[in-house]
Amino acid sequence: MSLASTPSRKNLTSGLDAGSAASKARLRVWLRILKVSRLIERELRERLRVEFDTTLPRFDVMAALYRAEKGLNMSELSGVLRVSNGNVTGIVGRLVADGLIVRVPVEGDRRAMIVRLTAKGRTHFSELAKGHEDWVNELLGSVDATEAETLIAQLGDIGRRLDQLKAVDK
Amino acid sequence: MSLASTPSRKNLTSGLDAGSAASKARLRVWLRILKVSRLIERELRERLRVEFDTTLPRFDVMAALYRAEKGLNMSELSGVLRVSNGNVTGIVGRLVADGLIVRVPVEGDRRAMIVRLTAKGRTHFSELAKGHEDWVNELLGSVDATEAETLIAQLGDIGRRLDQLKAVDK
Repeated sequence: MSLASTPSRKNLTSGLDAGSAASKARLRVWLRILKVSRLIERELRERLRVEFDTTLPRFDVMAALYRAEKGLNMSELSGVLRVSNGNVTGIVGRLVADGLIVRVPVEGDRRAMIVRLTAKGRTHFSELAKGHEDWVNELLGSVDATEAETLIAQLGDIGRRLDQLKAVDK
Repeated sequence: MSLASTPSRKNLTSGLDAGSAASKARLRVWLRILKVSRLIERELRERLRVEFDTTLPRFDVMAALYRAEKGLNMSELSGVLRVSNGNVTGIVGRLVADGLIVRVPVEGDRRAMIVRLTAKGRTHFSELAKGHEDWVNELLGSVDATEAETLIAQLGDIGRRLDQLKAVDK
């Protein structure tokens, strides 16, 4: 539609064809991203279950806590889990029961609690993370180092655009 | 581990470093695929809901039936939905009630039924598909035609490898 009002576009018909071809190509990009993402995620969930008797939401919580050595509060953890569809309270409760994380009071705020990994939790997560990286390395084995850098850059551009579109929505 | 037993690898240490760098790069590729895929999927689910009062599993069922003009049986539809986590029986029932698909008997097999889109269903899905393609075109707007072709090829290679790995598992 906006094409018609672009004076610089000399050949409207070929312009529309090109637009439509690009649109179809982007659709194919999306369908392939979706396929690859679902296949890899299913494989990772299955391997976490079989080899470590754990789940992706548990993995995601521990990954976030591994990075945040000082711990995170429940709302920060919810942000992490919004993405993997887990129930934070339930997952945190079970990780505490398993001795992998602890609830600790926040200094200077008697009502606030944060959770953080125990020593056992850090060791356990290191093993999970090692397995996880090895699996991804195997699953993406067809991607060489140069291709990987290109993909990282391109997907980074796509992600930033999506973040911007989301920010505009709000 | 297998590196150590590869005689052609002259410099074991740099070999391990390179292996580890490639592994980290593949991990970053995966994390970006996951992020992009979740952002786009969430956006598409939201737009299908707001603009067409429909869901991704309904869209996926209609998309499969749009391509298969002769119709599909329930087990073929389950294959489609295994991917988008829908309940085939429930979704088919509601699409029938909405007059978008019909159940028809299979010629020569009195017990078998297939479902296929009605004329209303085909028209409705054309509109959905147009909206869906426009949204993807917008969301992936940072990808030009050349980049799209590269991405399609690379993601295609990754997908084929994943299909092969899955086939080997079985």
